[in-house]
Amino acid sequence: MSTQLSSWNDGAARSAIVDFVTRVTTPDNPAFVPPADRIAVFDNDGTLWCEQPVIQLAHILQRWEEMAKQDPSLRDQQPWKAAVEKDMTWFRTAITKHYGGDESDMPAIAKGVLSAFAGLTAEDFAKSVAAFFRTAAHPSLKRLYRDCGFAPMVELLRFLEAHEFANYIVSGGGRDFIRRIAGEIYGIPQDRVIGTSSSIVFRENGDGGDLLHKAKLDVFDDGAMKPARIWSRIGKRPILAAGNSNGDIPMLQFANTPQRPALRLLVLHDDAAREFDYVSGAEKSLALAKQYGWTVVSMKKDWKTVFA
Amino acid sequence: MSTQLSSWNDGAARSAIVDFVTRVTTPDNPAFVPPADRIAVFDNDGTLWCEQPVIQLAHILQRWEEMAKQDPSLRDQQPWKAAVEKDMTWFRTAITKHYGGDESDMPAIAKGVLSAFAGLTAEDFAKSVAAFFRTAAHPSLKRLYRDCGFAPMVELLRFLEAHEFANYIVSGGGRDFIRRIAGEIYGIPQDRVIGTSSSIVFRENGDGGDLLHKAKLDVFDDGAMKPARIWSRIGKRPILAAGNSNGDIPMLQFANTPQRPALRLLVLHDDAAREFDYVSGAEKSLALAKQYGWTVVSMKKDWKTVFA
Repeated sequence: MSTQLSSWNDGAARSAIVDFVTRVTTPDNPAFVPPADRIAVFDNDGTLWCEQPVIQLAHILQRWEEMAKQDPSLRDQQPWKAAVEKDMTWFRTAITKHYGGDESDMPAIAKGVLSAFAGLTAEDFAKSVAAFFRTAAHPSLKRLYRDCGFAPMVELLRFLEAHEFANYIVSGGGRDFIRRIAGEIYGIPQDRVIGTSSSIVFRENGDGGDLLHKAKLDVFDDGAMKPARIWSRIGKRPILAAGNSNGDIPMLQFANTPQRPALRLLVLHDDAAREFDYVSGAEKSLALAKQYGWTVVSMKKDWKTVFA
Repeated sequence: MSTQLSSWNDGAARSAIVDFVTRVTTPDNPAFVPPADRIAVFDNDGTLWCEQPVIQLAHILQRWEEMAKQDPSLRDQQPWKAAVEKDMTWFRTAITKHYGGDESDMPAIAKGVLSAFAGLTAEDFAKSVAAFFRTAAHPSLKRLYRDCGFAPMVELLRFLEAHEFANYIVSGGGRDFIRRIAGEIYGIPQDRVIGTSSSIVFRENGDGGDLLHKAKLDVFDDGAMKPARIWSRIGKRPILAAGNSNGDIPMLQFANTPQRPALRLLVLHDDAAREFDYVSGAEKSLALAKQYGWTVVSMKKDWKTVFA
């Protein structure tokens, strides 16, 4: 395995990964897990790609600006007001408050998010996402959003696949947003993307019909919902779970069971030079990583490169 | 393709299948569909296995009898009363009424179904299903339930896989029930089973935790919900859809889009000698099959064998 995971520095994180994969894939090892049960789940924002700012928000901001052009009354309401005024501080504050348990801005954001694409067909929404990713760029990293995936994590996905793992994304972000780019960035097919979803409703049309996005939340795939959605989709417990924030704690816990080994990875954003340096929203998960011995992945120390 | 689909008689249904698969898999054919988009969806009850009686009901009946033993007050309430008295007529009537649009017995059945396994962990429920299928037998066909899959449909699944289709079950039956047997009967992995589900909730337990079944419906995967769940799970429209009842109509319609070909199959139960002869619950779907040219599969005329 020496030539693989080459964008990871030698250290505790890389060793933990290699040791775990060796144990579960060696037939005469007591920790052996058959290939069909080698399920790995990955949070997306902050785990597989950067989350400052939340990339999906940029797509929604584009749409809110368009909506406010068509209906000027929206300019006095959040979140359209912040979108038109390009007031990113309002959004950052709302997200920070959310991770700290203060949900006061969430109803307005949820309403804005859900109404943004209401009435679109599922296929037109997919086209909108594809168009966004062709040109949209990160404001400070100076690269396209589709180039914001973490190279060592993409390499880890390939490493796991080479050892007959099935990789899934389990994100608090939008399922129908992520799945349109997950193939290109991560090599993960769209049926292996689990995430937050708005309600979609079938509209019959003779011998045909469409699915329409409604302004209604279907599932908010974060926290304790993540294990439930993993089971709903896969029907199995993962043996490897990777996250970076408090919202990933139940998913990381769920991977552990007395019957067999589990690897839990927590990505630590401590690299101001190459990405960002923050622990906001990850305080509790970092404390639990220490308490339970989860593997903390330091972007600064464990990764030779951050972006491809 | 002459040696494949050997349990199908020559006729319109077999020809429609072979012609369709030939067209969508021939690169220079205008109807060519790339392998990644060859999605096929199958209803389960009455399409892949027999539905008289509904097999899942037998599993729940076992459980209701156990519950009524432990709590005698349940013996005066439906559906426990019918379970204890082995009054199958009450259940058959309720199902017939349901397919006819009369939902009057459904709240009691739903309450009974949902409370039957409330409090069990997801893994213990899986064990209960596995135990059921080891010994439970069909009352009149004189075979184990796990041998009640339709051999020509299983053969069709293999035929489609050989042509790089991905097959999914999309059932009004229970997802966590079907997925425990779908591998053995159909060769369909559990992450490709979409179906009705009860709510499951994560219960944290230190560095671990379990999912518990709640006495609450999550999704009733029938009718217009089927296209929505297909999109939620797969993110694509199927190009082949197979069903047998009115509850499959939206799924069959959804497969059709002007951009590319679609095959819709409707299994007709017209074989009293080898299975059953009924159209109850399929009246509207049969009328639409005629109107739109969907392919009706006659069990009597199109299948050389019904069961393996």
